Amino acid sequence: MIQNTLPIRVRYADTDKMGVSYYANYFKWFEAGRTEMLRDTGLPYAEIEKEGVALPVTEAHCKYRKPARYDELIRVISRLKEFPRASLRIDYEAFNETGELIAEGYTMHAFINAAGKPVKPPRIFLETLRRFFSDTSRG
Amino acid sequence: MIQNTLPIRVRYADTDKMGVSYYANYFKWFEAGRTEMLRDTGLPYAEIEKEGVALPVTEAHCKYRKPARYDELIRVISRLKEFPRASLRIDYEAFNETGELIAEGYTMHAFINAAGKPVKPPRIFLETLRRFFSDTSRG
Amino acid sequence: MIQNTLPIRVRYADTDKMGVSYYANYFKWFEAGRTEMLRDTGLPYAEIEKEGVALPVTEAHCKYRKPARYDELIRVISRLKEFPRASLRIDYEAFNETGELIAEGYTMHAFINAAGKPVKPPRIFLETLRRFFSDTSRG
Amino acid sequence: MIQNTLPIRVRYADTDKMGVSYYANYFKWFEAGRTEMLRDTGLPYAEIEKEGVALPVTEAHCKYRKPARYDELIRVISRLKEFPRASLRIDYEAFNETGELIAEGYTMHAFINAAGKPVKPPRIFLETLRRFFSDTSRG
Repeated sequence: MIQNTLPIRVRYADTDKMGVSYYANYFKWFEAGRTEMLRDTGLPYAEIEKEGVALPVTEAHCKYRKPARYDELIRVISRLKEFPRASLRIDYEAFNETGELIAEGYTMHAFINAAGKPVKPPRIFLETLRRFFSDTSRG
Repeated sequence: MIQNTLPIRVRYADTDKMGVSYYANYFKWFEAGRTEMLRDTGLPYAEIEKEGVALPVTEAHCKYRKPARYDELIRVISRLKEFPRASLRIDYEAFNETGELIAEGYTMHAFINAAGKPVKPPRIFLETLRRFFSDTSRG
Repeated sequence: MIQNTLPIRVRYADTDKMGVSYYANYFKWFEAGRTEMLRDTGLPYAEIEKEGVALPVTEAHCKYRKPARYDELIRVISRLKEFPRASLRIDYEAFNETGELIAEGYTMHAFINAAGKPVKPPRIFLETLRRFFSDTSRG
Repeated sequence: MIQNTLPIRVRYADTDKMGVSYYANYFKWFEAGRTEMLRDTGLPYAEIEKEGVALPVTEAHCKYRKPARYDELIRVISRLKEFPRASLRIDYEAFNETGELIAEGYTMHAFINAAGKPVKPPRIFLETLRRFFSDTSRG
């Protein structure tokens, strides 16, 4: 498994007239979280794109448990639990300052080339991830 | 059932460096769609809030089928298929100019008061919706 | 002069915890306004980009007179007052439903090619605009 | 003078189809910058709002010198150069990873109460700032 914890400050821009973070913004935080998770592996997402492969989101889901309030320092935990095959799934949990789970969700990603066609994950991507999935590397 | 079709122009602001709409923005479009769907019933969401009740999103989901490109005129179809009980579910489909389904999703909503506590749906809300659900009105 | 009036509904996504539209969102509305203004000329911005020329914003300004409230139908007026030379200036005014001026601003744009280098405005762009600036066409 | 330097990672969400940060997003970064600048003084903006006073933006300006690219770590420098009177002005500069100035701008802020009426700056706000403006404190 690969895991990253990213602190994110709730900006005024994130709030709506209910006084809490607008629901779509969690998906921006999830993006920030998975980006740092990939950076942790030593292969930043920007490097993957330089290989000519992009990982667009094909599915996104979030359950909202509690509101994220202005100026709170949220922690977003991103996890790659399973070694990617044709697609990639990343799970997220967000916690507020008092440690309460405020949201959980996931994103699914495809691998596509510059023409938008599905492709296999780049070799460098798989090799990088394999180090974090010892069981899978034997498979 | 209640249904609304809302045309939405993909703005430059919506796109990302893949040249297509960023995944979180679909949820903004879904919001625009359900807002117009409620307006169609004769009870705009802003009126519901004046009753002291808000309908925060408790769950959001989207499957992305095809990209939404810059300056395309997307159609977002919002549907309230079931009469709301303790919560409200709205389903969405988005189509591009050539009629292709590009995304589908749903949002779940709770009813809360100004203190953030769950409450029953406002009577005026239920009465307004009932006219669109003839079977339910007999229930 | 070229002028367009675009109605824009203030979405929940646009609001912040003050209950009114967040200040950065006006610039998204200005983008929507100038895009429709260019479409009115018969040369949509997407067509200009197909010529290999982009018009990035080099300067942006806005004065906020009154708040834009949730669900209000704002009118954004975009104006190209002067025939573009090396750069392009567009002016904006936003009005609320009761006709009050709520914001005014402008954006400046450069012409750049795919490599990001400044270039002359595309001929088709100038020819299209010239029809709206009779005095300039003689200059 | 009060000054803060805030590192900000350019997210995918921030980019547009030109491959660089969309112009409106700089204003979100400026917000993040000024919020941290106020936190540095010991009086976070959230505390000011608890005094019943908000500081809405009345004017915003930005000059864009160079693009901010995906995944770059931008530094936003926020400066309060002059002791606030009836209004507050904050200046910003943004630099990319190689130290180039990519944008500069400012925001003007009013002081308003919960009813939206202009008020004097809260005493605690002025007293907090005065420590950073020794000359002004004598004025």
